[in-house]
Amino acid sequence: MAGLWFTEKQTENFGITMKVNKTLHTEKTEYQMLEMVETAEWGNMLLLDGMVMTSVKDEFVYHEMVAHVPLFTHPNPENVLVVGGGDGGVIREVLKHPSVKKATLVDIDGKVIEYSKKFLPEIAGWLDDPRVEVRVADGFMHIANSENEYDCIMVDSTEPIGPAVNLFTKGFYAGISKALKEDGLFVAQSDNPWFKGELIRNVQRDVREIFPITRLYLANIPTYPSGLWAFTIGSKVYDPLAVSDDSFHDIETKYYTKELHKAAFILPKFVQELLQ
Amino acid sequence: MAGLWFTEKQTENFGITMKVNKTLHTEKTEYQMLEMVETAEWGNMLLLDGMVMTSVKDEFVYHEMVAHVPLFTHPNPENVLVVGGGDGGVIREVLKHPSVKKATLVDIDGKVIEYSKKFLPEIAGWLDDPRVEVRVADGFMHIANSENEYDCIMVDSTEPIGPAVNLFTKGFYAGISKALKEDGLFVAQSDNPWFKGELIRNVQRDVREIFPITRLYLANIPTYPSGLWAFTIGSKVYDPLAVSDDSFHDIETKYYTKELHKAAFILPKFVQELLQ
Repeated sequence: MAGLWFTEKQTENFGITMKVNKTLHTEKTEYQMLEMVETAEWGNMLLLDGMVMTSVKDEFVYHEMVAHVPLFTHPNPENVLVVGGGDGGVIREVLKHPSVKKATLVDIDGKVIEYSKKFLPEIAGWLDDPRVEVRVADGFMHIANSENEYDCIMVDSTEPIGPAVNLFTKGFYAGISKALKEDGLFVAQSDNPWFKGELIRNVQRDVREIFPITRLYLANIPTYPSGLWAFTIGSKVYDPLAVSDDSFHDIETKYYTKELHKAAFILPKFVQELLQ
Repeated sequence: MAGLWFTEKQTENFGITMKVNKTLHTEKTEYQMLEMVETAEWGNMLLLDGMVMTSVKDEFVYHEMVAHVPLFTHPNPENVLVVGGGDGGVIREVLKHPSVKKATLVDIDGKVIEYSKKFLPEIAGWLDDPRVEVRVADGFMHIANSENEYDCIMVDSTEPIGPAVNLFTKGFYAGISKALKEDGLFVAQSDNPWFKGELIRNVQRDVREIFPITRLYLANIPTYPSGLWAFTIGSKVYDPLAVSDDSFHDIETKYYTKELHKAAFILPKFVQELLQ
């Protein structure tokens, strides 16, 4: 169909709009509205409940920054859990770390996994790796039933509406602490400081009550609201800012570098002020 | 008028869209289409030739980062020139530096100055400061006629179409070098690395042939294409990365900090690769 444009209202009064060459799949799953479209600017793109989740052209930023910052902070991550992330992008990045023996993906919506494999093979193509276990299950419950098990946990959720609402609660962070080994750490996507300052402030406050080391870092994601995305780290022992230069090993990336690992924590003043 | 939305196509296939409460002024000036609108998300906003120039809510990022990075790099900036920048935002930031004795604004379009004073007083309200000289003139010619005069020059131009096309040429950078004192430096806005990589590459190459120290830094501007904006610095003597910690003095900012001054030069890998 010609002349088709998709618009995501990222706030009530502001949004992005893009040319869609064709819609590839549309389905109301058990949990959310799933849409896969081919866009002219960003290549194939996954939308959940009308919000951009990932696109072939800019996905590397989010997936690299969610995975490599915690994984290079931990000196020897072997057992990794990804909550959400059914598109498989975080898993692809996790597997670049040779220390990782097992990576478990727990996404509540099997349809996201199914259609990502079909339409986003550049992103989801590593979900069949022998080190990967894929579970279609409730991440909140998986966390609640895990104890002293993981070195790193990445929470790659949607916004705190719909199926992800439990993933932004203090009870969930407490569960993560229990599911982590005694020197483990986790990261959670935390929306953006321009429109969701209050959410960032609340997540930081909640995580800080549970983890001795709590930090926020940023990355530029052009298809996400405001282009500036925040990630919260909670860590029991290792400080992402204290990683020594020689503990980085070479991996292929398009956004992450070992210098950016630390620079991403240097926040604009108005973002610093959210954390006080 | 209700139900009014403005859309800027930032590329052929991608753009931003926002609710407009009312249009405040629309005029075809001698040089460009000037529109001033009141937006619901960003407050009053200036558009030139249909492109977002500045808005009350996010202008601080651009103006602080254009002004303070070069001004804190120079140990004693006294005489400063702003080319373009008729909205007055860079001038407002320049005046926060007590060493500055004179700040000259040269914008080719007096209408930008006139309507910024009227509708963007939070931004343009410092143009009547006694240290400021405002000239409605061609910045390219002003530079061509200046010699050994300025400590810092900020090029706050529109995109390289319309009146700003000469401001992206090697001849212009050579003129800037001549207009600067022997230890002077300049900064120019350089669009974004997602959609305009080739432009950034060319500007860096041209500036590097003239200035011994050439660098690129980034800032997040949510109303600009991709949310990630680039700035090129050309400097004769002082390196923005070598500024000592004690040469920063306190100024009121919402984005810039002395830590961010250096972190802004730490580039994502795909941006680094544009410079090679």
